[in-house]
Amino acid sequence: MKNQIKKVVLAYSGGLDTSIILKWLQDEYKCEVLTFTADIGQGEELESAKKKALSLGIKEENIFIKDLREEFVRDYVFPMFRANAIYEGEYLLGTSIARPLIAKTQAQIAIQTGADAVSHGATGKGNDQVRFELGYLAFNPDLKIIAPWREWDLNSREKLLAYAKKHKIDISKKKGKSPYSMDANLLHISYEGLVLENPANPPEEDMWRWTKSPKNAPDESEIITLEFQKGDLIKINDKKLSASKLLEKLNELGAKHGIGRLDIVENRFVGMKSRGCYETPGGTILLKAHRAIESITLDKEATHLKDELMPKYAKLIYNGFWFSPERIMLQALIDESQKYVNGKVKLELYKGNVSVIGRESAKDSLFNAAYSTFEEDEVYNQKDAAGFIKLNALRLIIAGKNGRKF
Amino acid sequence: MKNQIKKVVLAYSGGLDTSIILKWLQDEYKCEVLTFTADIGQGEELESAKKKALSLGIKEENIFIKDLREEFVRDYVFPMFRANAIYEGEYLLGTSIARPLIAKTQAQIAIQTGADAVSHGATGKGNDQVRFELGYLAFNPDLKIIAPWREWDLNSREKLLAYAKKHKIDISKKKGKSPYSMDANLLHISYEGLVLENPANPPEEDMWRWTKSPKNAPDESEIITLEFQKGDLIKINDKKLSASKLLEKLNELGAKHGIGRLDIVENRFVGMKSRGCYETPGGTILLKAHRAIESITLDKEATHLKDELMPKYAKLIYNGFWFSPERIMLQALIDESQKYVNGKVKLELYKGNVSVIGRESAKDSLFNAAYSTFEEDEVYNQKDAAGFIKLNALRLIIAGKNGRKF
Amino acid sequence: MKNQIKKVVLAYSGGLDTSIILKWLQDEYKCEVLTFTADIGQGEELESAKKKALSLGIKEENIFIKDLREEFVRDYVFPMFRANAIYEGEYLLGTSIARPLIAKTQAQIAIQTGADAVSHGATGKGNDQVRFELGYLAFNPDLKIIAPWREWDLNSREKLLAYAKKHKIDISKKKGKSPYSMDANLLHISYEGLVLENPANPPEEDMWRWTKSPKNAPDESEIITLEFQKGDLIKINDKKLSASKLLEKLNELGAKHGIGRLDIVENRFVGMKSRGCYETPGGTILLKAHRAIESITLDKEATHLKDELMPKYAKLIYNGFWFSPERIMLQALIDESQKYVNGKVKLELYKGNVSVIGRESAKDSLFNAAYSTFEEDEVYNQKDAAGFIKLNALRLIIAGKNGRKF
Amino acid sequence: MKNQIKKVVLAYSGGLDTSIILKWLQDEYKCEVLTFTADIGQGEELESAKKKALSLGIKEENIFIKDLREEFVRDYVFPMFRANAIYEGEYLLGTSIARPLIAKTQAQIAIQTGADAVSHGATGKGNDQVRFELGYLAFNPDLKIIAPWREWDLNSREKLLAYAKKHKIDISKKKGKSPYSMDANLLHISYEGLVLENPANPPEEDMWRWTKSPKNAPDESEIITLEFQKGDLIKINDKKLSASKLLEKLNELGAKHGIGRLDIVENRFVGMKSRGCYETPGGTILLKAHRAIESITLDKEATHLKDELMPKYAKLIYNGFWFSPERIMLQALIDESQKYVNGKVKLELYKGNVSVIGRESAKDSLFNAAYSTFEEDEVYNQKDAAGFIKLNALRLIIAGKNGRKF
Repeated sequence: MKNQIKKVVLAYSGGLDTSIILKWLQDEYKCEVLTFTADIGQGEELESAKKKALSLGIKEENIFIKDLREEFVRDYVFPMFRANAIYEGEYLLGTSIARPLIAKTQAQIAIQTGADAVSHGATGKGNDQVRFELGYLAFNPDLKIIAPWREWDLNSREKLLAYAKKHKIDISKKKGKSPYSMDANLLHISYEGLVLENPANPPEEDMWRWTKSPKNAPDESEIITLEFQKGDLIKINDKKLSASKLLEKLNELGAKHGIGRLDIVENRFVGMKSRGCYETPGGTILLKAHRAIESITLDKEATHLKDELMPKYAKLIYNGFWFSPERIMLQALIDESQKYVNGKVKLELYKGNVSVIGRESAKDSLFNAAYSTFEEDEVYNQKDAAGFIKLNALRLIIAGKNGRKF
Repeated sequence: MKNQIKKVVLAYSGGLDTSIILKWLQDEYKCEVLTFTADIGQGEELESAKKKALSLGIKEENIFIKDLREEFVRDYVFPMFRANAIYEGEYLLGTSIARPLIAKTQAQIAIQTGADAVSHGATGKGNDQVRFELGYLAFNPDLKIIAPWREWDLNSREKLLAYAKKHKIDISKKKGKSPYSMDANLLHISYEGLVLENPANPPEEDMWRWTKSPKNAPDESEIITLEFQKGDLIKINDKKLSASKLLEKLNELGAKHGIGRLDIVENRFVGMKSRGCYETPGGTILLKAHRAIESITLDKEATHLKDELMPKYAKLIYNGFWFSPERIMLQALIDESQKYVNGKVKLELYKGNVSVIGRESAKDSLFNAAYSTFEEDEVYNQKDAAGFIKLNALRLIIAGKNGRKF
Repeated sequence: MKNQIKKVVLAYSGGLDTSIILKWLQDEYKCEVLTFTADIGQGEELESAKKKALSLGIKEENIFIKDLREEFVRDYVFPMFRANAIYEGEYLLGTSIARPLIAKTQAQIAIQTGADAVSHGATGKGNDQVRFELGYLAFNPDLKIIAPWREWDLNSREKLLAYAKKHKIDISKKKGKSPYSMDANLLHISYEGLVLENPANPPEEDMWRWTKSPKNAPDESEIITLEFQKGDLIKINDKKLSASKLLEKLNELGAKHGIGRLDIVENRFVGMKSRGCYETPGGTILLKAHRAIESITLDKEATHLKDELMPKYAKLIYNGFWFSPERIMLQALIDESQKYVNGKVKLELYKGNVSVIGRESAKDSLFNAAYSTFEEDEVYNQKDAAGFIKLNALRLIIAGKNGRKF
Repeated sequence: MKNQIKKVVLAYSGGLDTSIILKWLQDEYKCEVLTFTADIGQGEELESAKKKALSLGIKEENIFIKDLREEFVRDYVFPMFRANAIYEGEYLLGTSIARPLIAKTQAQIAIQTGADAVSHGATGKGNDQVRFELGYLAFNPDLKIIAPWREWDLNSREKLLAYAKKHKIDISKKKGKSPYSMDANLLHISYEGLVLENPANPPEEDMWRWTKSPKNAPDESEIITLEFQKGDLIKINDKKLSASKLLEKLNELGAKHGIGRLDIVENRFVGMKSRGCYETPGGTILLKAHRAIESITLDKEATHLKDELMPKYAKLIYNGFWFSPERIMLQALIDESQKYVNGKVKLELYKGNVSVIGRESAKDSLFNAAYSTFEEDEVYNQKDAAGFIKLNALRLIIAGKNGRKF
C-alpha cells in the first residue's frame, strides 16, 4: 500500500503524537499530508495546531480547521441523550459520541480534496480506532486507512521521543499538560493510564481537570431550571441558547458543584477491560433532567421500551456504529417517542449531587394527582383493579391448580 | 361471597387502617379473623401490634408474628441486586421486593390454619394490591381475597375516622408519626401524598425519616470495603455478618452520609403516574459496589446481556411477578452469571455521594493492565485490530459501494 | 350507566348474535342504536346486513356500511408484514390486525353522529373484546362501552335462542353456515370450538372453508413472481394492483395450492390457552416472499434487530395495542429499515409448500457472489479474518487464562 | 510462528482438501501432524479417512477417530431445540451446532497428546473458521491455530490440484461425489456454490442428496407420534431410542416425505451475504413438534420470553459462541423453562408438509377447554375482563384526554 497513497488527511491535534505521525506519514508514505483539526470543545487553541502544522511543512491550503461544536451537540449529543444512553450502567459515552462526527468530517475533506487516504492517532488496542475507521468507511468505503500505531515499531514512549528528536519535532511539554492519556470535548474529559492502571488504586485528586471536588464545591446549593422541547434542552433558567452554548453553561454549573466524576472499569469493544476516569459535568445534569421530564410526559410503555433498548443503543455508540442502519432505526424509534417530551425541570446542585426537586409540563404532563391518590376520580374505578389482577393472575392460578410450584 | 368466608388471615400492621379493616372484616364477613404481622425491618414494635390485635378481640392463637428479616435480605433483596435491578432508571424497588415474601408467608399461614381467605390493606389504585394478590394466588390459587379498599365505601379520611370512632378503635396519632403515606422495610422507606402530589413541589426536608440531608452529613468522608461472593455481599470492612445484618450496617453508613434519597414520578402497573420519594441508603451503596465488582470479574457479553434484560426483570418485580415462571427463568440466567463475581470494592461515602475508589479480586479479576495499555502484551497483537475493524465494517462498505448513505 | 346512554354504535355483522345484541341494547338501554358494518373482505353480503338492521327497526340513516378493504390491507396488513410478524412462532395475526381498524372507524362514526357509546359482540373471555375496546378508547377516551356478553345472562346457546325467539329474531341457519366460531377477513379465516376444544383432536377436513387440502391441490406446481417496493408488495407476476387486490390475488393462488392452514394452541391476552385453526393463504406466501426480498436487500444487523423486536411487536398487535405509543415507535423503526427493500421474488407453490426459488434486486441487492466464494475479491482480505476472530475471542482467551471453564 | 510448532492436530475428513492441508502442514511447518476425524453422522466411512491418513504418512497412533453422534444430538442438538432456535427466520443451524463439539474434542486431543497447535480446513471467508477457532480458544487459550486457507497461496481450484499432483495426493473424484460445497451431519446437509452463487437461480433438483422432492414423495401421508420429556424428544411412535437414534429415525421419516428443504440467502458473521441450500428433515419435524408440546405445557410469559430471546440465542450459535458465558446463561434460562414440557404430539407428514394434528400431556397440560369457551367456568369471571381492559387502557385514556392522537 505504501507506494500507492498520494494524499492523506490526518486527524491532527497539534500535540506530540499526531505531530510525529504527520512526519512519519511524510517519510514512510512519501505522500502529501493534509491536516484536519476539529474544534469539538476540547479547549485547546486551534491556532497553535495550525502553526505547528505549518512548522512541519504542511501547506496552508492543506490545513483544515473546523468548528464543529454546534453540530456536535445538536446532532450527536442531544439525540443520544434523548435515549438516556449509558454504557454498562455508568459511562455517558463522551468520547464515543464525538468520534463519528470527526470521522465524517475528515472523510468529507478527503472526498473534497481528492485524497485517497485518511489517518488517525488512535492506538491499536483502543475503541477509538474502531470508531474512526467505521466512520470513514461508512462515508467513503474506498478510502484507505493508515493507522500508524498498528503499523510502526514506535511502540514505547522512548522510541517515540527518539523519533521526534531525530526529526526535530518539538518535544517540550506544554506547561501544565496532564501526564494522563486524555480525551476532551464539550461533553467530557477522560483519563487513562499511570496510577489508574491498577483498578485497586483511587485516582489522584489533581488528575481531575474540570470539576471541583465535591469536597471543595460551594457549601451553598444552587437551583436551576432546564426547559425541554421534544426531548432536547432549549433553555437554562429561562434563557434560550444554542445547543453548544447550553451544554457549555451546564458544564460550568456542574463543574462548579463537583458534579459528574466517574471512575470505572469498562469493557472495550476489542475485548479487554480498561480503567477510565471521566468528568461529564453538564451531561450528568442533563441525563437526570431528561429522565425527569420524561417521567411526567412519556407514556409508560414508551418509557419501558426505551429502557429495554437503551443498552443496545449505547453499545452501538460505544462500539462505533453511529453511522449504521441499526443505530438509525433505533434513533427513529427514540425520536418518535419524544414529541411530547416538553416542559421544565428544577434541579438542585450541591457537592456532587444533582437532585430533581420539581418538574412540570403545561401541556404535556400525563401526571394527575387525582388519578394516583386513593380517592375516587373520573377515570379510575377501583373495582376495575380486581378484574385486572384476576386476569393477570389467571395463568398462575391455572398453573397452581395444575400442581406447579413457584 | 360474604357469607362464604369462614376464616381470613389479615396482613396486619397494628396501625389505624389495618385495625379498621380488622373490625370491618369481623362485621361484614362475620368470620374469624387471624392477624399476620411480619417483621421485615420496618422498625416498628411488633409487640404493640399484638396488643392491638388482642384489644380488638383476636384470640392469642390467631395472632401470627414472624421475623422475616433474614429471609427477606438473603432470598429476595440479594438475588435482586445480583441483577442490578432499577425500575425506570431510578427506583430501587424497595417496596416491590418485600411484598412477595409477605404474601407467601401469609398464604402459608392460611394453608396451615385452614383459612379460606386472606386480606390486605393496600388501596385500589396502587401497585401493592397487585403484588399481594399475585403472591397469594401463586401460592394458593384457591384462596379468596378480600381487598377492603376496593369494596367498602370508606373512601375518605373522614369516613374512616368516623368508622373507627363508632367502633371504638383508638385513633390517637402516634407521637411523631409521619403524615405521609409510607412504607418501610430493611431496604427502604417510601413517601407519598400531601405536598408530593404536585410533582412541581420539592419534598419538605422534615419528610425524610432515615437519612441525613447531604447538607448535614459529616464533612469528613468515610471509606469502606465491601466483599462479595458469587455476587452477594458477605463482609463489610472485613467483618462477616448475616445478610440482614449486612444490610442494616450499610443502611447505617448510608444514612449517616446522606446517601440514597430519591424523588421521582413513576408509572404504576395499574396505569397512572405517581409521585414518590424514597430513601434506600444501604441499597444505593450496594448497587454501586455490585456494579464495581462485576466490572472486573464479569465477562463483557455477560454484562451486556444482563444489562439488556435488567429492565424487564425490574418491571416484573415492580409489577408483582416475583413468583412467576419468567422471573424464575431470568433469575436462573442471572445467577449463572455470578459464579465468578468475587472480590472487594472500596468506596468513599461523602455527603450523598458514593464513589468507587478501588476494586480487586484475587482470583477472578479479568482486568490486566498489560492488555489495555498501548504497549505490547502476550494476548493481543495490535495488527489483529485491522482485520477486526475491516470485517466489522464489511457490511457498511458493501452498502456504501451500493450507494447507500448513512 | 343504563339510563345514561342515549345513542350507541354497534359493530353489526347481520348475524344472529349481533342481531340479538341489537335488540337487547334497545330493550335494556332504551337508547337509539346505530349499526356499523365493515367490509374487510369477510366475504359476506353487506346488503343483507342492511336489510336485517332495517327489519329490526333501525332507521336507514342510522345504518353505516363501509368498505374498508383497501385501507385494511394498505395501512394495517402491509405495515405488519414489513415486520415479519408472527405470534408465538406460528400465528399470522389475521384477526388481531383487523380489529383496530374496525374500532377506529366505529369510534369515528360515534364522534360524527354524536353517539355516547359503542358496543360489540365479542365474548368476555376472548382477545377481541380487548382489541375493540383499546381501539375505541385510544380514539375517544370518553366513549362508553357496552359489552353485552359480559353483562347479560344469556350465557348459553339455549338462552340466546330463547331470547331470539321471544323477540322474533330470525334464527333460521343460513344454508352452509359453518358450525364453528369463525372470523374472516381479507387476510384469514379462523375457527374455534366444537371438536377443536380438545387439542388432541385433529380438525375435520370439511371445517376448512377457503384453502384446498394439500392432498387435493393440483399436481402441478405454479411459479409466481412478487415484486416489492419499500417492503410492500406492489406487483404479482408483473401486474400492478391495489393493495387489497394484490392480497385477493395471493389468496386465490394460495387457496388453490393448499397453502396457509394452521392448527395451534395459543395464549390469549386474558390468560388462558385456546385452540384455533387458521387459513391464511395469501399471508403465508407474502411472509415467505418478504423474508426473501429482505434476505438480499436488508443489512445484517438491521435484520437481526428486526428479528429481536418482532415478538414484542407481534404481541402488541395480538394484545390489541395497535394504537399505542410503543407500537408506533416500533413501526417507525421497522419502516426506517424498509427503504431499500425493493426487488422481486420467485416462488413455487405446490400442495401446501411455498418455496423461494429466486430473488433479485436490480439496484438494492447487497449480495455479491464474489464476496462469498472462497476466492479473492476486492473488499475482503482473508487475512483480516484472523484478527477478527482473535479479537472476538479475546475475552474468552483471557477468561481461559484465568482458569474459567465453559 | 512456522518454526515454533512441534505437533499439530488437524481436523481431517479424508477428502482432498484436508489431505492437501495435511501435506502442506508437514512441508511448511515441518511438524508432526495428528489427524482427528469425528463421526457426527456425516455418512462417510471413517475407515477410509484412516487409510488415507496412513497413506500420507501419519503414524497409526497419531490417527484419532471418534464417534460423537450421541454426544452431538444429546448435548448440542437437543439443548438447541429446547430454544426453538432459528437463524434469520429460516435456518436451523445444522452446521453451526456441530462445530463446537468438533473443536472441543480436537482441543482435548491436543491437550492429551501435548500438541501445541490445531488446524482446520475452513476457508477464510466463512463462518466455520470462526466457530472452530472460538471453540479451540475457549477450551485451550494457549493453542496455536493454523488456518491454511488464510495463509497459503493455493487460492484457486487449479493451484490446489497442481499442489496435490505434485505431492502425489490422489485427486480422483469419488464416484457420485457432489460438485457442491457441502457440509453434512446427523442434523443436516448444506450446499453452496456453483449455480447457487446467483440467488436468482433455483437449485437443481439433483443437488439434493437426502430428502425426496415433495413431488416424488409418497401420495399417502404418514402419521407419527413424538413424545417429549423436559423439552427433549424421548420416543417416536412410543418407541424409546437414544438421542442419536431418535434423530436418525426422524430424518428417515422426513426424507421420505420431502420435508426440510430450505433455500436462503443468509448473513455471515464475517459480514457478507451468502446463498445456501439446506436439508434438515428430522430437525424440521422436531421444531414443529417441540413448539406444539410447548403450546399446551409452557406458561404464556415463559413462551414470550423464550421467543424474544431466541434470535439472540440463535445468533450466538451461528456466530460460534456456543462456549461462551452468554450462551450458557441463556441456556440456563431456557432449560429452567422446560421442566413441565412433557407430553405427546401427533403429526402428519405429507409431501413437504409437517402438520400438527394433536397434542396432549397427561399431567402438564395447561389447556382446559372450560376456560376458553365462552361459557362460565370456575376460574374466570367474565366481568373481570372489563376491569382488565379498563386498566390496560388507562394510560391511553389519560393520553387521549390530554389531547394526544394515535
